[in-house]
Amino acid sequence: MSIDALQTRIRKFKNPSMLGLDPTPELIPQFLLDEACEQYGKTLQAVSECYRVYCKGLLDELKDVIPAVKFQSACFAALGFEGVKVLQELMAYAKSLGYYVLLDSMRADVGNIAAVHARALFGSLDLGEEALRPYCCDGVTLNGYLGSDGITPFLPYLQGENPKNLFLVVRSSNKSAREVQDLISGDRIVHTAMADLAMRWSQGLFGKCGYSEIVAIVGGTQAQTLKTLRRRYDRLFFLVPGYGAQGGTPKMVQYAFDRFGHGAVISASRSILGAWKKDEENDGRDYRIAARRSAEKMRDDIGKLVTVL
Amino acid sequence: MSIDALQTRIRKFKNPSMLGLDPTPELIPQFLLDEACEQYGKTLQAVSECYRVYCKGLLDELKDVIPAVKFQSACFAALGFEGVKVLQELMAYAKSLGYYVLLDSMRADVGNIAAVHARALFGSLDLGEEALRPYCCDGVTLNGYLGSDGITPFLPYLQGENPKNLFLVVRSSNKSAREVQDLISGDRIVHTAMADLAMRWSQGLFGKCGYSEIVAIVGGTQAQTLKTLRRRYDRLFFLVPGYGAQGGTPKMVQYAFDRFGHGAVISASRSILGAWKKDEENDGRDYRIAARRSAEKMRDDIGKLVTVL
Repeated sequence: MSIDALQTRIRKFKNPSMLGLDPTPELIPQFLLDEACEQYGKTLQAVSECYRVYCKGLLDELKDVIPAVKFQSACFAALGFEGVKVLQELMAYAKSLGYYVLLDSMRADVGNIAAVHARALFGSLDLGEEALRPYCCDGVTLNGYLGSDGITPFLPYLQGENPKNLFLVVRSSNKSAREVQDLISGDRIVHTAMADLAMRWSQGLFGKCGYSEIVAIVGGTQAQTLKTLRRRYDRLFFLVPGYGAQGGTPKMVQYAFDRFGHGAVISASRSILGAWKKDEENDGRDYRIAARRSAEKMRDDIGKLVTVL
Repeated sequence: MSIDALQTRIRKFKNPSMLGLDPTPELIPQFLLDEACEQYGKTLQAVSECYRVYCKGLLDELKDVIPAVKFQSACFAALGFEGVKVLQELMAYAKSLGYYVLLDSMRADVGNIAAVHARALFGSLDLGEEALRPYCCDGVTLNGYLGSDGITPFLPYLQGENPKNLFLVVRSSNKSAREVQDLISGDRIVHTAMADLAMRWSQGLFGKCGYSEIVAIVGGTQAQTLKTLRRRYDRLFFLVPGYGAQGGTPKMVQYAFDRFGHGAVISASRSILGAWKKDEENDGRDYRIAARRSAEKMRDDIGKLVTVL
């Protein structure tokens, strides 16, 4: 899918949000862990199996509510190969349900390693006539601290009939982001220098919706930064993390959108994934319903301030 | 292992170098690929099996030559779960041979995701009495663009009886590093601001050798930068990539060391991993011997300019 396809799905769902699948053992209801441990013992396979069941349940439940999903690769890789196997299965499953699928891997490599990374996600490893594709995804998050050498190996995949997307960290949502990203350099700030690079790399990569196939990640916890960046970079689509658990509110994230309610997608992870935990007496058996309620509330809360035309 | 243990191994081997295991299908001799494809078909499992055999051969061959090894996680993850399984096995195998083991994953996450990452690499996932440890490693590479929030979750593991290490990208070896890392901010440069942060995070984390458990990654392709940083950050150990294939020479990297020949380790990947390819007529059956020759040459070339006391 391209940035046009993502924007189209957001308009169809009237919901500019993205489900963040960042599972941790703490977010999984005990009954699921118990069931898996009975079958597989107290093993990484058991926890991986829990992630599979839990996330598949959420993907099924939310397929008509949320247009896009972001998989946090660290959470799956933390379980070793069994977690990665589940990640691959879930990405393919999400794709089969129609979701826009983003892999949140936040790597930064250069040269031939960046090329290996790009080929694994967006291309194929060709052995004679066999084209091997381990991952099924539409976009990947990257860190641009290493400059162009880390980005250019991905650019060929952002063109052609089925363009993929890069999501580049510009200004993150965490408190200490300022330590590096807000350093002032001449008339620029480090994070605007990063956004300037994103614009430079975007040459020839704009979709029909007017936005670049390179998306800027801009935290949803600083309204003023969002306002400034939205004005200055009107051709960069924004992925806005930090909603909910990290403190982002509809009032803050509204500034990420253009006047048509386009150009941004807001991601939420724990507030949906762990919605069942808000009620302390809840044992999590209704985790799907709790997640749906939380996702619909997020859509409606944002909808009060932003109308997606 | 701690920074003291790494420095001790370097002194024992009289060799301040690190083997970079960055396998790609292009670096694997055709006969190994053919053998694996006969057994497993043209599959990701076949390529993973090649990586296992090839890297195990190198680890065996070089265990008395090189004190440390760096695994490039992207190369293994590019094959999906089967590659990650091989990565886990190889890391444990390298550890059993005595190597200092570094995982080069170059991620940047914050908060609970950084905590998940840190626990997976350095701690354990506890299910009742079971402590699950998918990875066996002494250090990990990180990108500090997100600031302290991405680093502090790792700090508890850098203390105590068996301290682990963080390798933080300060100034990378690639050409475009300057686009972000060399921006000037007041009396600092972005990459010295990053090194200043590394020093701040290092409080209370200095080994007996005088160096911090937080290592700075500084590219080996710019002698002047190495010189300046070595003088200014005399308590940060340096990991210097870029040797060989990327253009780093003994003349350049000599400036990474202190006057005792301590305080730095130089990594080389393709120049050792793909040493058999230098001779076009070579079919790679002697890849171990070629790698040993290349590793010994690197040790001796550096040794002409740097004496490890």
